[in-house]
Amino acid sequence: MPRLSQPSRPEPSAPAQHGELAFIERIRRAASSGRTNPAIRLGIGDDAAILRPKPGEELIVTTDFSLEGRHFTRDRHAPQSIGHRTLARGLSDIAAMGARPLAAFLSLALPKSLARDPAWLDAFLEGFISLAHTARVSLAGGDTSESPSDHILADITLLGATPYGTALRRSTARPGDHLYCTGWLGGAAAELDATLNHSGATHPTASASVSPNPHPHFFPTPRLTLGQQLRQRKLASAAMDLSDGLSTDLTHLCHASRVAAEIELARLPLHPLAAARTHEQALDFALNGGEDYELLFTTKPRTKLPRTLAGIPLTRIGTILAPRRNQPTLTQVAADGTRSPLEPHGWEHLR
Amino acid sequence: MPRLSQPSRPEPSAPAQHGELAFIERIRRAASSGRTNPAIRLGIGDDAAILRPKPGEELIVTTDFSLEGRHFTRDRHAPQSIGHRTLARGLSDIAAMGARPLAAFLSLALPKSLARDPAWLDAFLEGFISLAHTARVSLAGGDTSESPSDHILADITLLGATPYGTALRRSTARPGDHLYCTGWLGGAAAELDATLNHSGATHPTASASVSPNPHPHFFPTPRLTLGQQLRQRKLASAAMDLSDGLSTDLTHLCHASRVAAEIELARLPLHPLAAARTHEQALDFALNGGEDYELLFTTKPRTKLPRTLAGIPLTRIGTILAPRRNQPTLTQVAADGTRSPLEPHGWEHLR
Repeated sequence: MPRLSQPSRPEPSAPAQHGELAFIERIRRAASSGRTNPAIRLGIGDDAAILRPKPGEELIVTTDFSLEGRHFTRDRHAPQSIGHRTLARGLSDIAAMGARPLAAFLSLALPKSLARDPAWLDAFLEGFISLAHTARVSLAGGDTSESPSDHILADITLLGATPYGTALRRSTARPGDHLYCTGWLGGAAAELDATLNHSGATHPTASASVSPNPHPHFFPTPRLTLGQQLRQRKLASAAMDLSDGLSTDLTHLCHASRVAAEIELARLPLHPLAAARTHEQALDFALNGGEDYELLFTTKPRTKLPRTLAGIPLTRIGTILAPRRNQPTLTQVAADGTRSPLEPHGWEHLR
Repeated sequence: MPRLSQPSRPEPSAPAQHGELAFIERIRRAASSGRTNPAIRLGIGDDAAILRPKPGEELIVTTDFSLEGRHFTRDRHAPQSIGHRTLARGLSDIAAMGARPLAAFLSLALPKSLARDPAWLDAFLEGFISLAHTARVSLAGGDTSESPSDHILADITLLGATPYGTALRRSTARPGDHLYCTGWLGGAAAELDATLNHSGATHPTASASVSPNPHPHFFPTPRLTLGQQLRQRKLASAAMDLSDGLSTDLTHLCHASRVAAEIELARLPLHPLAAARTHEQALDFALNGGEDYELLFTTKPRTKLPRTLAGIPLTRIGTILAPRRNQPTLTQVAADGTRSPLEPHGWEHLR
């Protein structure tokens, strides 16, 4: 299988005619269209890429599938959105660790029908590379193949860097810590829900500079600068990204930190797309919708937090508690003060 | 989608019952069964893994798909072989750069039918982890999903390390350099061919300590120690791995180095499984078969090379030449001295 790590010149002698080498060549050209992250000593073109983090830095590594029929569908998602979302999934994990992104590696398998449609691939790469430029991350390698089925298959690997021992983790929250989230919740689920319940494809375009992001599902904004500032200014005692839905992700944070938590529902910062729905729907989207790619983090009780960071509002949504036998991990506090257990109901992105 | 990077404890409160979390838990347990590579500061259990290369080391990164129907089929390949091969593809790239492997990240999507068959996953992990132990590489993270089709989908990311500026590359061969390969050629194609032309499944088991490897297709042996010795002893002027077939891979090396090359066919070290075939078949397997996962490397003319390295024979198979207009990139020299162009015909692993 030809890897992205292959000679950069077209090969007139033989495999040049193959669709797959032309495919690789398009990706290579798109990858070299921006400034290369200086950490990359060798990008596409050999058996492997070579990266050099700065002295005193450790590496942050994450991989995420983006599979047609699981994470997106071709009739609902424009290729630009699929490219953007494929990269955003990995970048959000890098943001959650407070890391500086370095390099992305893209494994991409296209069905036979699409492999002969350069327009689709170019639009996918447009969405991918546009976000890569914004995030200052370089496409440094990957793999290509023909998909064995009619599904587009992508897997993204992201590498980032942080100074030794400073990466934010989800396992370090302590009872008494305050619980915060960034930006707005429920927007991605509300936008997806609106798309699924309307006939015909909607193909919005990215508009990253607007806040709140009008297309949180199709073009999510990973909180990279914000995550790095949380780490640099030592504001967070623990952090993770909100990819599976607040109820599920907070359960993960609590289990990793061996704590419990309570959320005050009235404090949840609803995305305007969610807030436009019934109160019940809006809460469901915010708690269980997933894919908001905001950050969930905790602070020590005495930490003074600014109202915004990197231009994004920070909202206190609850408190970390000591775990107790026979008590739920998560408790929700309604506007009238009623307390009840909150079960994790997130995670299935495309139902 | 639940990532491998999730809480390590089962979650009795909710997603615990889901098949997918049980799936992740099996992988996590398999991953923690061996000694962890000390470069891994944080493995499975957070948004991302944290790796710390030694000071003065740079990172080597490669990703490779292993897709059912493209790289393997379920009726021909036992799950142990699929697990082994998935990891071997990435390790061979690390070997080709002369690097020390650090960590593997596995993205794995299983069809619904298999996700409820823990025996298949356990056997896959047995093959994967067994090779990981031999190679001293840790499974440090990844992603899981349900496959959108009835195909098993895997993507492997491998990270390795080398001292600054010492990684072997394919772009540094010079005219006059001698051309070598490690081990034996054509064995993987011969074994696959024998399997395809015999009814019924053959399910060999790994026997890594035997040389030549009796199952070069089902359980290939990445040349990790050999690659590191080539780098440490400064024996190679360029190197790459033989994954797509000698004719195709040498073309890649020549294009990357802007040189030409000639191969003496009589010198090719045929694997016993290839040598048992007709001369014509044996040559075809050795030149175009692919997936031998040996190393192809060049040496400066004055370099004195041992006959074996890390217990594996090194065989001179040709010479690097200056490129000339209207001359083929590759020339094959038959036993009788006849010269003819050699076209790249490798790369399609499963025809």
